[in-house]
Amino acid sequence: MAIEKKGMMFVLSSPSGTGKTTLTKKLAENDKKFAISISHTTRKPRPNEINGKDYHFVSEEKFKNLIEENNFYEHANIFDNYYGTLKNTVNELLSKGKIVLFDIDWQGTQQLAEQSGNDLVRVFILPPSTSELQRRLLSRARDPQTVVAARMAKAMDEISHYPEYDYIIVNQRLDESVAKVQSILTSERLRRTRQIGLTSFVRNLRDWQ
Amino acid sequence: MAIEKKGMMFVLSSPSGTGKTTLTKKLAENDKKFAISISHTTRKPRPNEINGKDYHFVSEEKFKNLIEENNFYEHANIFDNYYGTLKNTVNELLSKGKIVLFDIDWQGTQQLAEQSGNDLVRVFILPPSTSELQRRLLSRARDPQTVVAARMAKAMDEISHYPEYDYIIVNQRLDESVAKVQSILTSERLRRTRQIGLTSFVRNLRDWQ
Repeated sequence: MAIEKKGMMFVLSSPSGTGKTTLTKKLAENDKKFAISISHTTRKPRPNEINGKDYHFVSEEKFKNLIEENNFYEHANIFDNYYGTLKNTVNELLSKGKIVLFDIDWQGTQQLAEQSGNDLVRVFILPPSTSELQRRLLSRARDPQTVVAARMAKAMDEISHYPEYDYIIVNQRLDESVAKVQSILTSERLRRTRQIGLTSFVRNLRDWQ
Repeated sequence: MAIEKKGMMFVLSSPSGTGKTTLTKKLAENDKKFAISISHTTRKPRPNEINGKDYHFVSEEKFKNLIEENNFYEHANIFDNYYGTLKNTVNELLSKGKIVLFDIDWQGTQQLAEQSGNDLVRVFILPPSTSELQRRLLSRARDPQTVVAARMAKAMDEISHYPEYDYIIVNQRLDESVAKVQSILTSERLRRTRQIGLTSFVRNLRDWQ
């Protein structure tokens, strides 16, 4: 008899330039139990970005309607663009026992925690050093100076919220960090409260007497 | 800058015959961060058992003195023998950042949770099936019939307490279970509350601005 596992909301937050996007992709490609929550956004698609895969790209009017109808678990306005996670999408994945992965910032995490009744696992990824963070933020320097400055300010703001997370990983090496996140996932799936049918499994064991 | 980890109390409980003793040994031999808490007991040593390694073998008089002086984190009387864990031993290991492993039953776990202010991780190992449990319990059948019966009753009693544990592992294959326990350990060490010096690490990151 196999013990089923409940679906789970799993938040990964980190300042821009910590390698989180690569990490998220590595996790999902190694594990069929994952589903990455695809956000809605009003931002214009970048080259290579695919609608329905990277984001659901929608108009501002459509986005505001979704907000009014209370359809989002979380949403935010970042650098004049809206980003948000639809409740329907998430709940459907959870009901299939999936681990739904959220790549959101501290504001989204706070909203999600409130809306979901706090049954989510929050992991924060810190850069290993100032120089590494600096290097990564500046390597995107094709962006206008003002965008770089705003991104730095946002990174510092993001880092200051680490105490709102359950687990902290200092991202020294990407493969090690992937392994650490996988340990957290394995572990959280083994929590008694996330296993379905334990009571009857144990009743069967004891009935043998 | 390395982030240090706090010491941790880690309880593994399971009915007799789940392979827990082998599992405990495998864990400790793979990881220097472990320290197995060596219990005191009034039971007579079996052949091959070494005083100070398997148990601290003491007289009943000595044991009762230790109880009176409130020196135990937990103690119990099982099949007319006393077993207990000294506070001093544990606290010394914790202060060195060790993971102290407890191979104790539900009664010991309850006492330890109370005495330690609940900062411990509790894992319960279930047998995969009735037939496997039966096979393992009966394979020690060189013991007198009454001892076997008592051990069965104790196993059933033990199993009924699984809801008092944080994590549940169904022990299908020993190597898989060892890996699962290691994931729980890795994960628990990554908890924000178990990492020392995060505040100053993050302050250094942000000072760069």
